[in-house]
Amino acid sequence: MANRPIITLTTDFGLTDPYVGTMKGVILSRAANAVIVDLSHQIRPQDIQAASLMLQHAYPFFPEGTVHLVVIDPGVGSDRNIIGLKSNHHFFIGPDNGVLTPFFETSTAVHTVTNKDLFLDTISNTFHGRDIMAPVAAHLATGLPIEQIGPSISVDQCKRIEPPLARISANSIDGNIINIDNFGNLRSSITASDLQTIGHHEKLTISIGFHIIENLSNSYAQGREHEVLALLDSQNHLEIAVRNGNAAERLNSTIGDRIVVRWT
Amino acid sequence: MANRPIITLTTDFGLTDPYVGTMKGVILSRAANAVIVDLSHQIRPQDIQAASLMLQHAYPFFPEGTVHLVVIDPGVGSDRNIIGLKSNHHFFIGPDNGVLTPFFETSTAVHTVTNKDLFLDTISNTFHGRDIMAPVAAHLATGLPIEQIGPSISVDQCKRIEPPLARISANSIDGNIINIDNFGNLRSSITASDLQTIGHHEKLTISIGFHIIENLSNSYAQGREHEVLALLDSQNHLEIAVRNGNAAERLNSTIGDRIVVRWT
Amino acid sequence: MANRPIITLTTDFGLTDPYVGTMKGVILSRAANAVIVDLSHQIRPQDIQAASLMLQHAYPFFPEGTVHLVVIDPGVGSDRNIIGLKSNHHFFIGPDNGVLTPFFETSTAVHTVTNKDLFLDTISNTFHGRDIMAPVAAHLATGLPIEQIGPSISVDQCKRIEPPLARISANSIDGNIINIDNFGNLRSSITASDLQTIGHHEKLTISIGFHIIENLSNSYAQGREHEVLALLDSQNHLEIAVRNGNAAERLNSTIGDRIVVRWT
Repeated sequence: MANRPIITLTTDFGLTDPYVGTMKGVILSRAANAVIVDLSHQIRPQDIQAASLMLQHAYPFFPEGTVHLVVIDPGVGSDRNIIGLKSNHHFFIGPDNGVLTPFFETSTAVHTVTNKDLFLDTISNTFHGRDIMAPVAAHLATGLPIEQIGPSISVDQCKRIEPPLARISANSIDGNIINIDNFGNLRSSITASDLQTIGHHEKLTISIGFHIIENLSNSYAQGREHEVLALLDSQNHLEIAVRNGNAAERLNSTIGDRIVVRWT
Repeated sequence: MANRPIITLTTDFGLTDPYVGTMKGVILSRAANAVIVDLSHQIRPQDIQAASLMLQHAYPFFPEGTVHLVVIDPGVGSDRNIIGLKSNHHFFIGPDNGVLTPFFETSTAVHTVTNKDLFLDTISNTFHGRDIMAPVAAHLATGLPIEQIGPSISVDQCKRIEPPLARISANSIDGNIINIDNFGNLRSSITASDLQTIGHHEKLTISIGFHIIENLSNSYAQGREHEVLALLDSQNHLEIAVRNGNAAERLNSTIGDRIVVRWT
Repeated sequence: MANRPIITLTTDFGLTDPYVGTMKGVILSRAANAVIVDLSHQIRPQDIQAASLMLQHAYPFFPEGTVHLVVIDPGVGSDRNIIGLKSNHHFFIGPDNGVLTPFFETSTAVHTVTNKDLFLDTISNTFHGRDIMAPVAAHLATGLPIEQIGPSISVDQCKRIEPPLARISANSIDGNIINIDNFGNLRSSITASDLQTIGHHEKLTISIGFHIIENLSNSYAQGREHEVLALLDSQNHLEIAVRNGNAAERLNSTIGDRIVVRWT
């Protein structure tokens, strides 16, 4: 275990309330050397899919041994489980609501979190991030073997969510906008590997609403000022962007909008 | 003193300006090993009451010896004092404007912050968080005895604010909404101990505006989808929530709104 | 090199997306002991000037040896350089788009960032903050000599931006609003040294829009409740503020508005 173990936090708590800070207090009370990194606390409330995608893309940039804690937990206080798992030498803790689905396939250990010795003394019905998940994450970060958080279960018993995938047909690839970032860039569910399946073609057209973009650009800078571009983003998804502008505003687009790639 | 002393920050500075980052630079220049935790920087400007309540609820989740720095300071540049105190083995620093009231009763040492040797060389008239409070917090965190920040004063000489309390009568408990969180959950001034004073009753009704809720739920998950619920929140206050929804929007409620508990 | 090197981050990424957290993962993978401090991630997209001013004011509050990483990078993917420089015993890394202009004059070493051994294995066309700048910042923080990031260049070859300066004439000092902070305080381009050039005068008037303020106040607290004040802010710029209020809303002011100081 690293000298300064890393714990990342992904929640829908926002940054106004002291919920995140309180979880950090709980963690530092149990793992004084931990380095805590905020991935995002501005996931839309209850948006399990968004948190899942975000963590899937971000975790490989952290060192092995990092503990990733995700608290998107609309079922808090119900009989939903909390699970902890190890996958690709990283640890993940979150409610068993599907948010950890991307890590199931490569998991080498999956456990339900039931060991009350690790929890806070008093457990609320509304904030298990603070009372259960944060202290368990801290213990994992300081080297507690994952077997000690609770009994092993099969990932087949865990709740799954379906990631938003593109539909590939003979003449087109059909996807949806799955994220809009701070710059107004529109990330689609169409990936670089989806595009590779169609091989090389003279001409690609990308349609979103009434807007048609011809061919892929390599970078924002390749476009003219304020031009609408299609390119592969930093996570290898097809992205619609406007150079030095806001594509979401320009195209009046929103999450879920359809995007279609055709070729000739 | 811990190897890696913890300093929490609570301000109304927001996260756009570099004020918070600058205070962290000042702290790390004097306490290289400090771990700095943001509680919130999105307190509404000048809202001393909100900062006071937030810190009161959050501080017990941090280790003993933590230094809690609160910069809600509309009186900066006036003759208001800055005070530092020790209470329940935690340290608190802030302007003497009432924001530290919850910690007066259990304080074992209260001092005005006057030792200029601890301050920055140049003191502005508008940012004592950076110039005075951050360096003093750093010194306390590295083990400076609190007596050395300035002369002892009695808490009776310090400015106090009244916390928002519920009014308990023979037939009802009458409170107000004191916070709306990121989920739209409405926290009231009515606490679990207020509710205990009335003993057990067959039926509780909770009124807010024209909306009446029957009985307390144990958790969000106990409600039907989008049902309005009353429950005890993670800080033992009576809370109005909507399962997977936003109670503040649904009930069109705002801070200060009246909430009444009755029983039969 | 300090035991726990400090890296500050200034970006226009916002706090919703995981871009900042991902950069922190990259940094901690290479500089496990680094302390990472957020200056601001809410710079307006592509606002090089604002980032430049912010960093210029904030960096002196950090210890010598701190690495300041600025990712305001509308030219990512073009042939713009990335540069790293040493100035006043601090390190600065950012795109060569002018954002580092304030540090050119005192720079003792300026290098283009070209040493691919320091970069991530795969370089995207849209996120050099993660793929190039973060790992290079981490290496500098752990003590890599700046010569090893790439070849030396002259600052004369680097792109510059002009800071917003006041115009001083015989009868007036003429400036603009350059920032509006979280409190609605209006920072102008007129500095304390600009005001010193005119010497002492019986009466100063400060005009902004149709509003005229007579004389400078020393502090917010010196004003009457909700009075419009002019004073020197914590960075020695002339600021318009409203005691316990929001000057931007009160005066309906925005960035770029003209502000004039006259005297008799």
